[in-house]
Amino acid sequence: METENRPLDALNQSRGKRVMVELKNQKQLIGKLRAFDIHINTVLEDTEELENGLTKRKLGLVFVRGDTIVLISPAH
Amino acid sequence: METENRPLDALNQSRGKRVMVELKNQKQLIGKLRAFDIHINTVLEDTEELENGLTKRKLGLVFVRGDTIVLISPAH
Amino acid sequence: METENRPLDALNQSRGKRVMVELKNQKQLIGKLRAFDIHINTVLEDTEELENGLTKRKLGLVFVRGDTIVLISPAH
Amino acid sequence: METENRPLDALNQSRGKRVMVELKNQKQLIGKLRAFDIHINTVLEDTEELENGLTKRKLGLVFVRGDTIVLISPAH
Amino acid sequence: METENRPLDALNQSRGKRVMVELKNQKQLIGKLRAFDIHINTVLEDTEELENGLTKRKLGLVFVRGDTIVLISPAH
Amino acid sequence: METENRPLDALNQSRGKRVMVELKNQKQLIGKLRAFDIHINTVLEDTEELENGLTKRKLGLVFVRGDTIVLISPAH
Amino acid sequence: METENRPLDALNQSRGKRVMVELKNQKQLIGKLRAFDIHINTVLEDTEELENGLTKRKLGLVFVRGDTIVLISPAH
Repeated sequence: METENRPLDALNQSRGKRVMVELKNQKQLIGKLRAFDIHINTVLEDTEELENGLTKRKLGLVFVRGDTIVLISPAH
Repeated sequence: METENRPLDALNQSRGKRVMVELKNQKQLIGKLRAFDIHINTVLEDTEELENGLTKRKLGLVFVRGDTIVLISPAH
Repeated sequence: METENRPLDALNQSRGKRVMVELKNQKQLIGKLRAFDIHINTVLEDTEELENGLTKRKLGLVFVRGDTIVLISPAH
Repeated sequence: METENRPLDALNQSRGKRVMVELKNQKQLIGKLRAFDIHINTVLEDTEELENGLTKRKLGLVFVRGDTIVLISPAH
Repeated sequence: METENRPLDALNQSRGKRVMVELKNQKQLIGKLRAFDIHINTVLEDTEELENGLTKRKLGLVFVRGDTIVLISPAH
Repeated sequence: METENRPLDALNQSRGKRVMVELKNQKQLIGKLRAFDIHINTVLEDTEELENGLTKRKLGLVFVRGDTIVLISPAH
Repeated sequence: METENRPLDALNQSRGKRVMVELKNQKQLIGKLRAFDIHINTVLEDTEELENGLTKRKLGLVFVRGDTIVLISPAH
């Protein structure tokens, strides 16, 4: 399928679902993927910040600057 | 809604409200979001700088260069 | 052959096959290469994250931001 | 007001006034904001360099490369 | 000669020959230079990874993201 | 004055005069400013390299890549 | 002279002569400057790598990615 050939299309399949976003500063955010753009600037809803696997903060709505992101994966 | 599909639109919904801006140097700024641009260069008013959760400085008006920002979230 | 002269063409030969992706944060991802773009933003399926050669996490589908990637190589 | 909606317009309101410029190398510069451009390359006059809140050097006129700047705020 | 005046032309003279690629993470790759582009994204064949001068891994075909490369030199 | 409103114009006023260039690697160069461009790539003549305020090396003519520069200031 | 006003023109005067190239990873390369481009990607011939002032390796022909370069100066 054509849409599977582009990384942003694959990311789009996670829109509206909970994802884990790993940041360059070692932290992880888990929240519902609401929006992203070509820079991978990303907006999450109902977000929790984890450090070493433990919830550290509840952040609610979060805008993440794309260049701080390592990877995005569906949350288990 | 269309406007919810773009990260900067979501950020725009926080304009005029207090937000927490986390920086790559580990510090946090809390202030009223007055302006931002596509580079995420951001202007805050009535800003406090926090380190380890404690207010370190009152900065008033602050221009933050976008590339130093990790995330922006509504302030609790 | 012409297609061998461009790096992204060589990368394209690994599409649909298992690859090892080494990240700047020292971690490795092993998964099936589903998609990539000119920024080397990459999507892997059935992904495992390794640290020091040991499986650390199973991540399933993963979107990796290109600028965090050091190298990509067919998985042994 | 329209001009309040763009970060560089807010910065422009500090032109000719004393500002504190915080750098990525942890140092601070305090001087009169004479000029800046879209990269946030900035020129200060009558500049003092501070480290840990103490004046370390008097630098007079200073050209600061924009990508080394974290934030700019009116000097107290 | 004209072709000697551009760095990528010099690099092109090593195509099909064994080269040493030094990375920003201190590691070295030695392999046959198959392809590169203007970002210095590079593809090597029959690649060995060295650390402190010792072979650490055999990687075979490797795609290296250009921005992780310090230098490329014919392998001795 | 118009020419005072752009950072590169201010820098241009130091052309032919001795300046101190502070680098991201903590070193300082003092030399006569011969040339610069919009990337702040800079050429100095009769350059001395200082570390911790002491002359470490005499370098003569030096081309400095702009992205390594923190600030440029007239030399005292 | 016009050609003295642009940094790359000054660099061009060193073409064919021995130069010292200082890298962001603290190492130095000394070799004959054969080619460079606007990114300061640089090709040296008969290159020696120095660390702490001592010859560490003879590298012969070397392609150096521009963004790893701090400065270039005629070799003494």
